[in-house]
Amino acid sequence: MSGLVHRFDLRVYYEDTDAAGIVYHSNYLNFAERARTEMLRGLGFGQQVMRQRDGVGFAVRRLQVEYLRPARLDDRLTVESRFCGCGGATLDMAQRVLCDEHILATLEVFLACIGRDGRPRRLPPELRRALLPNFCREARSIVQKTP
Amino acid sequence: MSGLVHRFDLRVYYEDTDAAGIVYHSNYLNFAERARTEMLRGLGFGQQVMRQRDGVGFAVRRLQVEYLRPARLDDRLTVESRFCGCGGATLDMAQRVLCDEHILATLEVFLACIGRDGRPRRLPPELRRALLPNFCREARSIVQKTP
Amino acid sequence: MSGLVHRFDLRVYYEDTDAAGIVYHSNYLNFAERARTEMLRGLGFGQQVMRQRDGVGFAVRRLQVEYLRPARLDDRLTVESRFCGCGGATLDMAQRVLCDEHILATLEVFLACIGRDGRPRRLPPELRRALLPNFCREARSIVQKTP
Amino acid sequence: MSGLVHRFDLRVYYEDTDAAGIVYHSNYLNFAERARTEMLRGLGFGQQVMRQRDGVGFAVRRLQVEYLRPARLDDRLTVESRFCGCGGATLDMAQRVLCDEHILATLEVFLACIGRDGRPRRLPPELRRALLPNFCREARSIVQKTP
Repeated sequence: MSGLVHRFDLRVYYEDTDAAGIVYHSNYLNFAERARTEMLRGLGFGQQVMRQRDGVGFAVRRLQVEYLRPARLDDRLTVESRFCGCGGATLDMAQRVLCDEHILATLEVFLACIGRDGRPRRLPPELRRALLPNFCREARSIVQKTP
Repeated sequence: MSGLVHRFDLRVYYEDTDAAGIVYHSNYLNFAERARTEMLRGLGFGQQVMRQRDGVGFAVRRLQVEYLRPARLDDRLTVESRFCGCGGATLDMAQRVLCDEHILATLEVFLACIGRDGRPRRLPPELRRALLPNFCREARSIVQKTP
Repeated sequence: MSGLVHRFDLRVYYEDTDAAGIVYHSNYLNFAERARTEMLRGLGFGQQVMRQRDGVGFAVRRLQVEYLRPARLDDRLTVESRFCGCGGATLDMAQRVLCDEHILATLEVFLACIGRDGRPRRLPPELRRALLPNFCREARSIVQKTP
Repeated sequence: MSGLVHRFDLRVYYEDTDAAGIVYHSNYLNFAERARTEMLRGLGFGQQVMRQRDGVGFAVRRLQVEYLRPARLDDRLTVESRFCGCGGATLDMAQRVLCDEHILATLEVFLACIGRDGRPRRLPPELRRALLPNFCREARSIVQKTP
């Protein structure tokens, strides 16, 4: 399955932490968004390209996060991202944030493809074609089974 | 049910928005955390007080967000928060973000009470007593039924 | 001088703090921007109104910050803002962040009025008229003299 | 002089931008802090190491930023950092944010070395020794001369 997962590395800086000494919980969503952006860019669909050439972008419609262990200042994190489904105008992803093999958080993210007016738009056919070989049927169960 | 819901108002500033012209999705989690903090403060449990007097704090263990409509620069938002359950060391809340009667987002947030070492700790008995009259059995269904 | 100074109150939440237990230094810029926004709104120049009606907005061209004391979780802060000069397309402001009479930080902020294309635009005449009675010649020296 | 400058690359994501379509002004401070952190880490002084082994950290005492051109979504930025002076308990740095050879912003940052109690502490001697060969007398003038 390793061919189907995208890995994105990042470092925890002071700006990411809070007075409890750990990464503030909403910043995991930012980390996950960076990873999705790089995964799409790797397939040829940078955010600006999509906006300007295709007139579309992605908006988060729904997400679930499970926080298992805290990340701390200076930690080197990896975000693993997998596509796990798509509809006409939607895209589902499963993501995990890891540090040294430990799973810190799991996310399920449901995206909608929208036009410049904010209304739903069909996924560009080229994007759909690029995504298809990268889908991972088991991705969602992987996220759900994390201990 | 109005006695059981806490309302917190806030304004959307440039810092909250992104290049799509709307509030960046992770900032709803920040708005919700501000509202929870004020709700607890209103019951006599400010974050610093809890940390220093009781040696405890709350960590987000799990959350679900549904994004229904975008918020924009200068919008005046209201976060409604309801307690909807608690275990020995956990607290569940249902929250909604509104703008002019429109529901923009709904959140279910599962919190763990933790000690200074990050390990689970029982809810302080005074907090439990203060919370009890504020529980709302229907809170979760309210969130789930949002159209 | 009290008629010339705008006061804006805010609360410090977890999102504003970092692992050093204090407010992260760049967040003072956000606090100051919230205060400028409310000061302009109070004069009838909300950001969205200016963008949509007048086709202009403000961009920060230069700023200086001096950090004197740290703010902490739950602190109630006040941002004081004064206009201290303007050119054809620029506006200078002096701001201070206080907590219980203590000055935590002082800022000098130089703004440029820009059009939708990002190029300099003259200040709208109505804004200039609204600002004039609010200028404070001594504002900059006040900031500079903070101990 | 190339031996004396530290370069740090980063990407602009949605979280960094605002409704004006450009990077929000306070985020340049975050970018600069990431770069300083990596520069110090490269010399063997990671933030956690300094906090735990040496009991010290750095706090920003004063900073000046000049914004010359905006950065946008997906931009690949470089932060150049130079040490330009130090006192017994202080460290001065000059930084620039670039995109494709264009200078977007320049920063002068004055740091204080502080102990766990937040009070000034002398720079650890090993850090001073590590810094010395990296000082750049002309660094400040470089920042000031940016057109």
